Amino acid sequence: MHVVFLIYPNVTQLDFTGPAQVLSRLPGARVDYVWKTRDPVPTDAGFSVLPTATLADIAHADILCVPGGFGCTDVMEDEEVIAWLGRIGADAGWVTSVCTGSLILGAAGLLGGYRATCHWAWHDYLSLFGAEPVRQRVVFDRNRATGGGVTAGIDFGFALMAEIAGEDHARMVQLGLEYDPGPPFDSGVPEKASHETVARLSALYAGQAGDRDARIRAVATRSKETA
Amino acid sequence: MHVVFLIYPNVTQLDFTGPAQVLSRLPGARVDYVWKTRDPVPTDAGFSVLPTATLADIAHADILCVPGGFGCTDVMEDEEVIAWLGRIGADAGWVTSVCTGSLILGAAGLLGGYRATCHWAWHDYLSLFGAEPVRQRVVFDRNRATGGGVTAGIDFGFALMAEIAGEDHARMVQLGLEYDPGPPFDSGVPEKASHETVARLSALYAGQAGDRDARIRAVATRSKETA
Repeated sequence: MHVVFLIYPNVTQLDFTGPAQVLSRLPGARVDYVWKTRDPVPTDAGFSVLPTATLADIAHADILCVPGGFGCTDVMEDEEVIAWLGRIGADAGWVTSVCTGSLILGAAGLLGGYRATCHWAWHDYLSLFGAEPVRQRVVFDRNRATGGGVTAGIDFGFALMAEIAGEDHARMVQLGLEYDPGPPFDSGVPEKASHETVARLSALYAGQAGDRDARIRAVATRSKETA
Repeated sequence: MHVVFLIYPNVTQLDFTGPAQVLSRLPGARVDYVWKTRDPVPTDAGFSVLPTATLADIAHADILCVPGGFGCTDVMEDEEVIAWLGRIGADAGWVTSVCTGSLILGAAGLLGGYRATCHWAWHDYLSLFGAEPVRQRVVFDRNRATGGGVTAGIDFGFALMAEIAGEDHARMVQLGLEYDPGPPFDSGVPEKASHETVARLSALYAGQAGDRDARIRAVATRSKETA
């Protein structure tokens, strides 16, 4: 069972470290963390990860997983990476993502006609790529599995593990990782957060956005023309 | 706000990547990942992390956090690391851990007389180090904050963030990380898992244990003699 995570500069590290903690415990799992070179890849949390393989090293994946992060727009515009994703995604056993990783899958033409999810604040972009947006923490559609924002990657990991290795195994790994979550507050989605919290965070995102919206729309337009 | 994570070979990576995702969003946070050298540190999930500093580079921490993992026994026996922890822990703002990281704090003499928690399967070792074991996901006692097994590090991160930066800020970060957990099953602690699941995992741990029990007890004995 070869699990392949794409990593890239300014990836939201929990988007892949969460599901990696789960999926590395699949029976017979071999896990690779892949980027263009083997140089250290800086994450959003101040540490860098060493890729275990380059794009060129990987010809097939049983599970392809693309995490999200503020670096996702650069990846969506990167023809080399997008072409690689298109090739690997075409015959991967599972084509998956966490958070805004689904927009990268979309840019690679891998979500057209599939139900999918994304971080709540980026969810509306999914339809630009022909996906059918579903506001759910984890969405399965045929061999596509997508998780919502950041921490949803852990729930995604367990749901996928149960599909592949059975619920008994997934329950055992859940016990090993003591996954009995107890958030001290209940503010994890806009529907549960206060209006003020949503407004403050939305303002923060807007301030960081730059020309991101225009760039994502341009990628979507180009990808439609190619398809 | 200088956050310092100790990392080490065979650390359970989610033990620090979970709280790092949260605590790196503390206002003014500067986060370091520290080991003896700057060589890549292999984690339990097949990737290596580059330390951002060495032990010698760090003289003080506002938050000192020690993650757990199967490599913890080696760290508990490592006089250089334990001495460093004792020094940094003596005047850190917060002395914290996730999972079996609390046993490392214990080995450094930092938990004597403090209420603390640990991964459920290692919880009984806490009292060897003079700590008062509490079966709770996150335990605060004065400036000590300890989290339970692996995924508890995320709840620990939010609880600590609320103490330091206030609940409003923590709620905003929770929304950003879409932390509205939805585990597909309910098997995260022995009290909720089936007897069969607990038995299978306990057998797996026993098979991996080697002389771990004897080594931890020896560390505890030596640390009592030093104290």
